[in-house]
Amino acid sequence: MGVLLRRWRILFPDLTNCISLCQKQQQGCRFYHEKQKRMLLSQHFLSMNLREDSVISQESKRGEMTCKSQRLMLLGGLICPASPGCYHYMPYTVRAMEKLIKVIDREMQIIGGQKVNMPTLCSAKLWKASGRWELMSKELLRLADRHGQEYCLGPTHEEAITDLIASQGCLSYRQLPLLLYQVTRKFRDEPKPRFGLLRGREFYMKDMYTFDASEEAALHTYALVCNAYCNIFNNLGLRIMKVQAATGSIGGTMSHEFQLPADIGEDQLMMCTNCDFSANMEMINSDQRHCPVCKGKLVETKGIEVGHTFFLGTKYSSVFNATLHTSQGKLAPAEMGCYGLGVTRILAASIEVLSTEDAIRWPSLIAPYQVCFIPPKRGSKEEKGAALLEALYDSVAEAVPHLKDEIVLDDRTHLTIGKRLKDANKLGYPYVIIGGKKALDDHSLFEVWNQNTGETLFLTREAIVDLLSEV
Amino acid sequence: MGVLLRRWRILFPDLTNCISLCQKQQQGCRFYHEKQKRMLLSQHFLSMNLREDSVISQESKRGEMTCKSQRLMLLGGLICPASPGCYHYMPYTVRAMEKLIKVIDREMQIIGGQKVNMPTLCSAKLWKASGRWELMSKELLRLADRHGQEYCLGPTHEEAITDLIASQGCLSYRQLPLLLYQVTRKFRDEPKPRFGLLRGREFYMKDMYTFDASEEAALHTYALVCNAYCNIFNNLGLRIMKVQAATGSIGGTMSHEFQLPADIGEDQLMMCTNCDFSANMEMINSDQRHCPVCKGKLVETKGIEVGHTFFLGTKYSSVFNATLHTSQGKLAPAEMGCYGLGVTRILAASIEVLSTEDAIRWPSLIAPYQVCFIPPKRGSKEEKGAALLEALYDSVAEAVPHLKDEIVLDDRTHLTIGKRLKDANKLGYPYVIIGGKKALDDHSLFEVWNQNTGETLFLTREAIVDLLSEV
Repeated sequence: MGVLLRRWRILFPDLTNCISLCQKQQQGCRFYHEKQKRMLLSQHFLSMNLREDSVISQESKRGEMTCKSQRLMLLGGLICPASPGCYHYMPYTVRAMEKLIKVIDREMQIIGGQKVNMPTLCSAKLWKASGRWELMSKELLRLADRHGQEYCLGPTHEEAITDLIASQGCLSYRQLPLLLYQVTRKFRDEPKPRFGLLRGREFYMKDMYTFDASEEAALHTYALVCNAYCNIFNNLGLRIMKVQAATGSIGGTMSHEFQLPADIGEDQLMMCTNCDFSANMEMINSDQRHCPVCKGKLVETKGIEVGHTFFLGTKYSSVFNATLHTSQGKLAPAEMGCYGLGVTRILAASIEVLSTEDAIRWPSLIAPYQVCFIPPKRGSKEEKGAALLEALYDSVAEAVPHLKDEIVLDDRTHLTIGKRLKDANKLGYPYVIIGGKKALDDHSLFEVWNQNTGETLFLTREAIVDLLSEV
Repeated sequence: MGVLLRRWRILFPDLTNCISLCQKQQQGCRFYHEKQKRMLLSQHFLSMNLREDSVISQESKRGEMTCKSQRLMLLGGLICPASPGCYHYMPYTVRAMEKLIKVIDREMQIIGGQKVNMPTLCSAKLWKASGRWELMSKELLRLADRHGQEYCLGPTHEEAITDLIASQGCLSYRQLPLLLYQVTRKFRDEPKPRFGLLRGREFYMKDMYTFDASEEAALHTYALVCNAYCNIFNNLGLRIMKVQAATGSIGGTMSHEFQLPADIGEDQLMMCTNCDFSANMEMINSDQRHCPVCKGKLVETKGIEVGHTFFLGTKYSSVFNATLHTSQGKLAPAEMGCYGLGVTRILAASIEVLSTEDAIRWPSLIAPYQVCFIPPKRGSKEEKGAALLEALYDSVAEAVPHLKDEIVLDDRTHLTIGKRLKDANKLGYPYVIIGGKKALDDHSLFEVWNQNTGETLFLTREAIVDLLSEV
């Protein structure tokens, strides 16, 4: 260590003093600031160099089936396997996830949701009280601490939140409806984790819990949250089916699933061709072919469950003694609802339903980056266009501040435009802008691909700034 | 369920059809939108009704010592105990934490950091390879899955990230320095969790890992990250000490701690009164009273460790075979650094060092809300001022858009202004604005408290908008 420290002291003579270091930084960092002024694709931590066969062999070592979103996310370097059902989320995935969380936060907060964050370690005591310590059997990941106290890693938090509410004493009706939610990592020891982020053992979930003093108010709140879920999927441009569903190990008296229709979906759904009725197959007799409401014909389809809502009534509040003051001055057990959205599952499911076999497509709102700029190949006839394209990049960054961190320059100019366009197509940036031959004309024109519509246009710098201002 | 569903159908006749539901929502939600237009304190999920003795007894059941930040956070309803060393983070804490993460993200991204997210379940195989499966002994929380595979809950991710880098094949020198970081929940089975968020068993940490192809470049990167850490604490207005430290179970050849001086701190630090030298006591002989650099006098102080940096060299890269291409076309084992910031610990530590015994003070940048408006008591002589204060609230929300979600109206008008000011003082909003007697004068004046400086001013609506525009 002595040698290192000495050498280091020569490089940074007054390093131990933080204040003088911070002053030095003004000089020391300039290099990095300059270098980072444009977002360079060559510095992104993506596994663009992975080849299909190596990716497939990585996963098939485990004998897992793969689906389109899993294959595309592995190939694009968006996820990387760690252990069965557990993935490293790479930078593009983290960006998409943070954007999705913002979309969710917004809708949860419009209806009055307040964000909390509950521990992962859930005491066995609470789960035994609700009866789910036994019921959930091998799906729970369990452990004991150094003192022998038992915990599970929370797959959901009905016990925790109800105990928390009970610990607050009786809440006033003025605080109702109380809508608490969190976006945290959840755990489920799936017997067969598969399909990448669609069915993992670790995943991010948004779970909301609501509390009301009467069944009627609680049903109103239930509808409110369902509406917010519809808004979220509408905002993402995803077609969603809301179907009647079974309550399973969560319990309660009514439940709905939010399903994205997809062939890879693990849920069998029945839709009426005549009325609004739709339900998970588990809700009806397997040989039933007519709608229980209007007797219309039922058709079958498959879906990926991305959301699930439960009307719980007093199932948990009666166990944990969570009571509320009603506006009539009485005490009532809390009428509860719980509501889940699979955050990482929505990422994968939207890739599953929007992408082609070779190319990722994102809901625009959550694409990791909005625009990719591709300058001409180094040494090509169009090489001079590089400076024009970089100037365009800078114009966009300046004129459209909200896109400043949403644009990336594919500086791998040792590759042809065609090769880089293919990569851009695979990764699914909503807009790709190319500086080709026409950029060198008197009135520079750049090629603009809208990858979500498939449209291509040649536009001037001004027209591009106008177009992207709308994004 | 039949009864419920029928009743529910009467309330929301076409609920199963999501699209018509979404249309209905425009009406259904209006009530909530109106109601939520102003942020009402009475609807915040805070435990303002908790009394000191009940809080203390909640914690002392466990025989834990309490410190100022723990007591204030419990009393203010910012945290709520779940199990030893595990807390529910309540809405104000989540808001502060999300702001802190933004501050950290910004500085990490300025130096080129890319955000990833690694699994909590860390395979025993990797930890056995590094030798830490044994070394960390009881501090690791361990479990086996349904197939008997062993894991620990990641307290830190050197093994995981180095294995991830190795799995990418040899990275090019063009991608270097590679700086990857995450902000995730970490686990450590502390023998004695205590002091609330200062020493918990679950906590949020920002951990960064850097990769370079030479020792010299890696030392440069190390300095760069240390500088970014200084910037973060400077931005928060926290006085930080950077001290030489031992490398402990992480390993490596050089290490620094970032310490906030505080009496409650568990680290003993030695500072030279003459030069820049400062070190954790563990780095020098316990009877040493003179600086090893200049022989100046050493003085002792205590600190809360909020950050820790390690120069790892090739300790992990050689185990996991993580190699890089140098610019000379050779292969070299990655020279690594790792860098931690205790996210939830910084929240508690800043409360610890900035607050009085009775009143929380936040670094302004991360205060959960920036402004609290207190209208007069219902039925008081000043009651008419309520409308003026509400108009002021609306003016601020409109004229200062970035404060729109940062202001809260204390609508508990059954309480006196004095009682609510006391609560506002306890919770530490940087600004408190009161509509008292002078609001009814011809030229309405409102009382403005700057709680961080202790300053009080009477200002007009225009002057307040100007003042808050700077926040």
